[in-house]
Amino acid sequence: MAWELRDKACIVGIGETEYKRWGQIMDRSEFQLGCEAILKALDDAGLTTADLDGFCSYSMDRNTGSSLAAALGIPQLRFSNMVWEGGGGGGAASIMNAAMAVASGTANVVVAFRALCQGQSGRFGQSRAAGVVSGTGGQGEFTIPFGLMNPPSNYAMRARRYMYEYGITSRQFGHISVAAYKHAQRNPRAVMYGRPLTIEDHQSSRIIVDPLHLYDCCQENDGAAAVVITTAERARDLKQRPVYIMGAAQGSGFRSGVFAGSRPDFVSASFTTVARDLYARAGVNPKDIDVAQIYENFTPMTMMSIEEHGFCKRGEGGAFVENGRIEWPDGELPINTSGGNLAEAYIHGFELYIECVRQMRGTSTCQVEGAEIGLCAGGPGTEYVSDVIMRR
Amino acid sequence: MAWELRDKACIVGIGETEYKRWGQIMDRSEFQLGCEAILKALDDAGLTTADLDGFCSYSMDRNTGSSLAAALGIPQLRFSNMVWEGGGGGGAASIMNAAMAVASGTANVVVAFRALCQGQSGRFGQSRAAGVVSGTGGQGEFTIPFGLMNPPSNYAMRARRYMYEYGITSRQFGHISVAAYKHAQRNPRAVMYGRPLTIEDHQSSRIIVDPLHLYDCCQENDGAAAVVITTAERARDLKQRPVYIMGAAQGSGFRSGVFAGSRPDFVSASFTTVARDLYARAGVNPKDIDVAQIYENFTPMTMMSIEEHGFCKRGEGGAFVENGRIEWPDGELPINTSGGNLAEAYIHGFELYIECVRQMRGTSTCQVEGAEIGLCAGGPGTEYVSDVIMRR
Repeated sequence: MAWELRDKACIVGIGETEYKRWGQIMDRSEFQLGCEAILKALDDAGLTTADLDGFCSYSMDRNTGSSLAAALGIPQLRFSNMVWEGGGGGGAASIMNAAMAVASGTANVVVAFRALCQGQSGRFGQSRAAGVVSGTGGQGEFTIPFGLMNPPSNYAMRARRYMYEYGITSRQFGHISVAAYKHAQRNPRAVMYGRPLTIEDHQSSRIIVDPLHLYDCCQENDGAAAVVITTAERARDLKQRPVYIMGAAQGSGFRSGVFAGSRPDFVSASFTTVARDLYARAGVNPKDIDVAQIYENFTPMTMMSIEEHGFCKRGEGGAFVENGRIEWPDGELPINTSGGNLAEAYIHGFELYIECVRQMRGTSTCQVEGAEIGLCAGGPGTEYVSDVIMRR
Repeated sequence: MAWELRDKACIVGIGETEYKRWGQIMDRSEFQLGCEAILKALDDAGLTTADLDGFCSYSMDRNTGSSLAAALGIPQLRFSNMVWEGGGGGGAASIMNAAMAVASGTANVVVAFRALCQGQSGRFGQSRAAGVVSGTGGQGEFTIPFGLMNPPSNYAMRARRYMYEYGITSRQFGHISVAAYKHAQRNPRAVMYGRPLTIEDHQSSRIIVDPLHLYDCCQENDGAAAVVITTAERARDLKQRPVYIMGAAQGSGFRSGVFAGSRPDFVSASFTTVARDLYARAGVNPKDIDVAQIYENFTPMTMMSIEEHGFCKRGEGGAFVENGRIEWPDGELPINTSGGNLAEAYIHGFELYIECVRQMRGTSTCQVEGAEIGLCAGGPGTEYVSDVIMRR
């Protein structure tokens, strides 16, 4: 069946708090940060809380729609919706779910957001003795006894197998970090602003879990980010030039979550099926993408994502990211132009959608000239991933 | 903006496990129960797991879409979605979200379900010293210190205020239980099958939290229930006569969750705004409803729900449920014709949607003759509620 949502919904506002290293925002609660980002996004759109009637988030964001609605004085809440899986893979899906709500007339104006204060709620990168471990499929009883106690240990196995099968090197992973840090030097919002990184810095940084160096791993940050979504029709009358949601997809392939270790495509960022739906729905192909924001939990996974979105073939990601090809301004496909999870901030990847909107508006600090179509990948994960293609 | 989903999606299959008192299903996991209900629902529809590409649930059901997809061997998962609030108020919303997914072409066939095994995961009715307390807004730190340690203590206050303001009596609450138990005597699936209840039994039953008697409270049960949703177009070729989703709505009014205690309409089942959207979207009014399934956590809340759905005016619910008016076969509006949460089973209210489908198919054990339009209310709650109107 045809996808009915192409260009039906728009992002009309963006908002974000300051972004900080984990533990450096302790004067306001994670809930307050969420409210702050949402209010800024509404203001950017020229809307008020009286217009807002829906909330979408992902990864079991602790700040629920009904609590936010009460705190913000929303007169009537019509949609409060959660991407039902763990991890950062749900970012684009939360935007897609908001688009479904407004396009169907279920709600008028929906905010998709992520509020994440790891200094208050717990660091993602730390091993935990019990309970849910982020990035391992969410079922720690099956993974912790075997030493998969945190996200890097889980993804390191995939990275090592990827290197073995395709001859990829750690230095090639490093080029993804170098590009991100380069872009962050132009972005005063970035946590790593003023702290450039060379490939030698990457190579000499300590091992977290072999083969992952420190600079292969995303940051752990505090902050909140939000986008406002409404119908294309309503968007025409608002303050900002609308950014259209051309296509979106979410899901996973055969075997996921805790079962992902046994699937045929173990060396995978899990985007194969989702990316196929994405391009078919948007009616474009990888060559049409002017700029991309590709979620980084760990650089090897970002490289696999690049391949699975068709920017190069499987196993060619190492060569693809070399020689400045993903760097602004001269690369053929600038990636993570705000600094991304590695060097701007890890707001569970939601800052990437805001950067994609900026590129479509023409207001990025690493603006790709004439950019018309941007792709954002949420995930990679082992459970559930999602994608969105936006156009100006 | 007009609601675009009227009659676009259908329920084409229903499935449920056996329903038992809490603690009486210990030979299979809650996850297995979920799989069992889903497979039965697919079989009822004449579909297989190869057709299925989406899962919706609510109240943070522990059995995630990606785990189910892996266990059931789903080739590609395209939608895994959670109503983002606690409580039974999300049941109809999970069906509505599935309808949005199939109507937009995001997924082809979606299961909405609830798997709940209180014997394994913990009884809802028990006080807990710490953590989230179901039915109190989900933020125990604000309620537990004041004695709101479980759902009955939370709802008892509303019930007492309701009695005070409108002169409602405990005996009137009892008529809701008596009707449910009467219907359950014809339903062999019902946990209370073979155990009829008189109004005197209700009145002499012990107080749980004043003014709530034992038989004002829903059961605590184990089991799982599922419905299969696809487009109206696809539904035409399937095994069962399709049941159309005419209208649906979800949300909350001004101030919800932990803030609900301070809202202007404290004596409320929270359906005022949602029911208004519901009827407008379905294009019908309360007089058009032939049969209703109204979620019962506690009978006073069910009575308020009846009022808020326009079956009678505020304060008239006591008189409305008397004299067999909500009883099959002679009542003017038979309610909870399978026995509902009180006497069939409390699968977090999801068994009510299955009964509504049966009524539309003409296969209920308390079949309302010529029933064409049925209403199902999910909730009442303090956070988030939802409704669906189905037609044959």
